[in-house]
Amino acid sequence: MPQRRGDVILFDRPPAVDAWAAVGGKKEGEGPLAAGFDLLFEDNRLGQPTWEKAESELQRQCMNQLLRRAGLAPDALSLVFGGDLQCQCTASHYAMRQLDVPFAGLYGACSTMAEGLALAACFAACGLADRAAALTSSHFCTAERQYRTPLTYGGKRTPTAQWTATAAGAVLLTPTGRGPQVGAVCFGRVRDFDVTDINNMGAAMAPAAAETLLRFFARNGRRPEDYDAIYTGDLGFVGSRLLLEILQVEGLPLQNHQDCGLLLYDRARQQVKAGGSGAGCSAAVLAAHILPGLAKGQLRRVLLLSTGALMSQTTFLQGESIPGIAHLVELLAPDVPV
Amino acid sequence: MPQRRGDVILFDRPPAVDAWAAVGGKKEGEGPLAAGFDLLFEDNRLGQPTWEKAESELQRQCMNQLLRRAGLAPDALSLVFGGDLQCQCTASHYAMRQLDVPFAGLYGACSTMAEGLALAACFAACGLADRAAALTSSHFCTAERQYRTPLTYGGKRTPTAQWTATAAGAVLLTPTGRGPQVGAVCFGRVRDFDVTDINNMGAAMAPAAAETLLRFFARNGRRPEDYDAIYTGDLGFVGSRLLLEILQVEGLPLQNHQDCGLLLYDRARQQVKAGGSGAGCSAAVLAAHILPGLAKGQLRRVLLLSTGALMSQTTFLQGESIPGIAHLVELLAPDVPV
Repeated sequence: MPQRRGDVILFDRPPAVDAWAAVGGKKEGEGPLAAGFDLLFEDNRLGQPTWEKAESELQRQCMNQLLRRAGLAPDALSLVFGGDLQCQCTASHYAMRQLDVPFAGLYGACSTMAEGLALAACFAACGLADRAAALTSSHFCTAERQYRTPLTYGGKRTPTAQWTATAAGAVLLTPTGRGPQVGAVCFGRVRDFDVTDINNMGAAMAPAAAETLLRFFARNGRRPEDYDAIYTGDLGFVGSRLLLEILQVEGLPLQNHQDCGLLLYDRARQQVKAGGSGAGCSAAVLAAHILPGLAKGQLRRVLLLSTGALMSQTTFLQGESIPGIAHLVELLAPDVPV
Repeated sequence: MPQRRGDVILFDRPPAVDAWAAVGGKKEGEGPLAAGFDLLFEDNRLGQPTWEKAESELQRQCMNQLLRRAGLAPDALSLVFGGDLQCQCTASHYAMRQLDVPFAGLYGACSTMAEGLALAACFAACGLADRAAALTSSHFCTAERQYRTPLTYGGKRTPTAQWTATAAGAVLLTPTGRGPQVGAVCFGRVRDFDVTDINNMGAAMAPAAAETLLRFFARNGRRPEDYDAIYTGDLGFVGSRLLLEILQVEGLPLQNHQDCGLLLYDRARQQVKAGGSGAGCSAAVLAAHILPGLAKGQLRRVLLLSTGALMSQTTFLQGESIPGIAHLVELLAPDVPV
């Protein structure tokens, strides 16, 4: 049975991430993590007639890589948790109709990978699934025209804007595998600090990340220095600065913070303004960088907090502020005792 | 530990639905299930400046009713599973920012209640949550302008069209309560039979409902006649007929089928064409009709299959077909042995 301390779920017998995969587009292939990807596409259309179909194809390709690495056929999967940023999560649904496995749809915006990974870990740890997968994606071109302006409009990007990753990531959880372990999970609470700037999502999400971290450390005896790194999902440069400021004030200074949005691209050279974002950002950094590091023992204990900005184009146009959420997953190298 | 037979998760120690609540709008208050609702609003704006905010208010009111009936403060909730039909599920997120409890966002379209109920049951049964809630809603006015045409356009409705319920439903699951029990759950698989008519979602969803039912009965020794009723989410008149035809051909004739979309309204008198729909439809019928029937012993064993049509306005305009999904939950009266 898992243990619970406050909102934190701790696994006595931690489930393992037995396989993972990351696929990306052109810009991701020019970034510092390129070597960690399973597949990189030079053409972000992936041979599809629309950007939306291209994003579904990213997910399909990512799932194929996951199954290939795990040596499994699709029907070996007990359940897939998945979602994306498209309205009604259609990238995921159109990918899943070709996979034919049980599917639980999620919406967590850019927090989807940590949410799906946490749920898959719970299902694997409790005998609810032999093999539970989490899958998510984002695509620069679908996100830009959906949330902001059509690409052909050629709008200027503000310094606080982030670049939506064209990427997908997938992980496979099993009850007793040999891969990196999930030690604990903590689901986020929605936080809204009245940020209304659609081009500053880092600021909108930072309070949620701070709240989840404070809640995680308050109740379970862990301290930030117990971890090699604490990875936030995609706060970018602005949100990362705000997170550290909030935590400093709250008496939880972080020395080992990293942000997936700052790892995926070379911010200066690749002109991504405040950094990367999108559900595929932390998913790809997890699969291309964090999990390989844990598997090789270069990382021993880390936290992943994927962060999500929960607005829509409609609520933005109605002048609403942007709520944020951050789900947390503790990941351990395969040989670390829980 | 739960047992698994194929894709079906069976609970040896079934979690209980210890509280439930349904709130609705004007048309729902004029329908045959009006007496089962906790709250009915004469004005579908609920005093809000936009339809989108009105739907969030529906969720808040529904959660308040749930907590009142359970005699709990919000912070007694371990986790809320929720989602809705609005792009990026904003009705749920804007409702949750005032609740301040751990939240896992779902997107299952009109299948959201069965998906959330199934996940909450898994979490309650496995010690992952002391009190897990599922919450969802839909609103006629937000759905019409998002998926079809603005209300002021005054478009004619086709005979196969369904009426999106203005309603929210919520349930509270505990590991060992005294309410109706969840005996088993089965997550759906995405099915697409190439239906492209946005005004015939029943036809798009019927194959998914049939597939989940066939899979459920294939592996666990249950038969349709073991149940007092098998409730589908919102196939409406057209989808229900198609479901029965498919199952007849597949050798699983149903004598005890009911559809939430046909129960919520008086179809002839209330001019809802093929019946009700929307994530709030099966959620409200569950809380206003099915759970009270189980609690009173009028129903002993039932199945709930909420069905979802997984398209968006974008994929519709791009000429894509409509994938469907159906999640299944087995519900038992409090004194029925598992």
